[in-house]
Amino acid sequence: MSREFDVKKHTEGIIEFIRNYFRENQLRGAVLGISGGKDSGVVAGLLSLALGPENVVGITMPCHSNPTDKSDAHLVAEKFGFEMLNLDLTSTFDSFVAEASKIADCSNPLSNANINLKPRLRMATNYYIAALLSEVRGGTWIVAGTSNKCELYVGYFTKGGDSTYDIGILNDLTVEEVIAVGAYIGVPDPVLYKAPNDGLSAKTDEDKLGVKYSEIAKVINGQEGEGQERIEQLHRNAQHKFHTPYYKKCD
Amino acid sequence: MSREFDVKKHTEGIIEFIRNYFRENQLRGAVLGISGGKDSGVVAGLLSLALGPENVVGITMPCHSNPTDKSDAHLVAEKFGFEMLNLDLTSTFDSFVAEASKIADCSNPLSNANINLKPRLRMATNYYIAALLSEVRGGTWIVAGTSNKCELYVGYFTKGGDSTYDIGILNDLTVEEVIAVGAYIGVPDPVLYKAPNDGLSAKTDEDKLGVKYSEIAKVINGQEGEGQERIEQLHRNAQHKFHTPYYKKCD
Repeated sequence: MSREFDVKKHTEGIIEFIRNYFRENQLRGAVLGISGGKDSGVVAGLLSLALGPENVVGITMPCHSNPTDKSDAHLVAEKFGFEMLNLDLTSTFDSFVAEASKIADCSNPLSNANINLKPRLRMATNYYIAALLSEVRGGTWIVAGTSNKCELYVGYFTKGGDSTYDIGILNDLTVEEVIAVGAYIGVPDPVLYKAPNDGLSAKTDEDKLGVKYSEIAKVINGQEGEGQERIEQLHRNAQHKFHTPYYKKCD
Repeated sequence: MSREFDVKKHTEGIIEFIRNYFRENQLRGAVLGISGGKDSGVVAGLLSLALGPENVVGITMPCHSNPTDKSDAHLVAEKFGFEMLNLDLTSTFDSFVAEASKIADCSNPLSNANINLKPRLRMATNYYIAALLSEVRGGTWIVAGTSNKCELYVGYFTKGGDSTYDIGILNDLTVEEVIAVGAYIGVPDPVLYKAPNDGLSAKTDEDKLGVKYSEIAKVINGQEGEGQERIEQLHRNAQHKFHTPYYKKCD
């Protein structure tokens, strides 16, 4: 965490940012996917404080998933008082893979194709539920994102998946800063201090990346440290995820 | 079409842009969804000319769709010689809606929720097939986009759907310029001169937008014309689709 991070100031700043954006754009509520991890727990808490828990809906989207993820998700909902919905994506995923298997063998659960399908189906689900709530409950509901600055810096997200949303809350906060905000607003410990794991394979995020989030934060804050070279390389390689290249007439 | 649009120059420019991008990034092939409309027909033709048809795969993704869309798609594949794959999304869509119906009534096929689910499932499919081809055939396959400048200007696309891809081909070309390029490279007439229709509802795109693409092109080219006010308003309202707002520590 950068020395000057003022948790009270930024927690209040985020809450004000959310309130202002919703007021200026005449929006009613926010939906978000709740994974059971700290990022979605902290975002759900901040949204509840900003908008009132009645205007926040968390969504669990199991998809051949670890059942403890779902119970951790409910810890957060109980703490902040927002509603949880569940949409099981297992049958949708299986229907898709059955069709794709007519093209080629799709049976490896750890292929890139299968791993990245899940966050894309979850993105589609977030938007589906936001549209459904707008229709059924009235007002405009939007999708909140849970990406943090460390993940974004190294491109640790799925294009068209967890990186697609209508409002970002933690995009400028390192993992340590997210934890500080979460502790400040009272996100339950089992959620806040869980080892980050995207639930898409057996490894933790840090295992897969080959670097630690704390090391990424150091690089972001301009400090030298271990893994710096690999982190800068991941960052460079991720540029295509931020800026889609396209043909320009005047070049 | 702006008076100075040089169809030969820009067709060659696009082909060179595609070749350079693939060479610089050591990519092998491109996949794209083929709707049977002109944008995907022109992009598929340009990709085939740039990369060789053996490195292009078109995907039809029917989803409770009009069967003529699929036969028009094959006209394009025959003309340019690339391979077509088919992944029927009807059962995936139905599985999803069956699960969502446990939350609320999802039976209206023309609700925003249902209309926008299709392009999001198609985006996920494009990426799934690109990953699958990378695994099965080797090399890296990416997803090509088919958005044109007029659609983009007024935000006529689905966030996380048809607007998510790895390389854009027509993003700086108005509809008339797309047609000029298509005619130049020989995209079959039934595809090139079809009334634009996203296949998501019974109306044409222009009916839904309430403005004509030719009017949008005029506004883009700085000419006054009918519908200008509505076009500028659509453009302003679409900004959230291009720039996701997020909390910044230093604001």
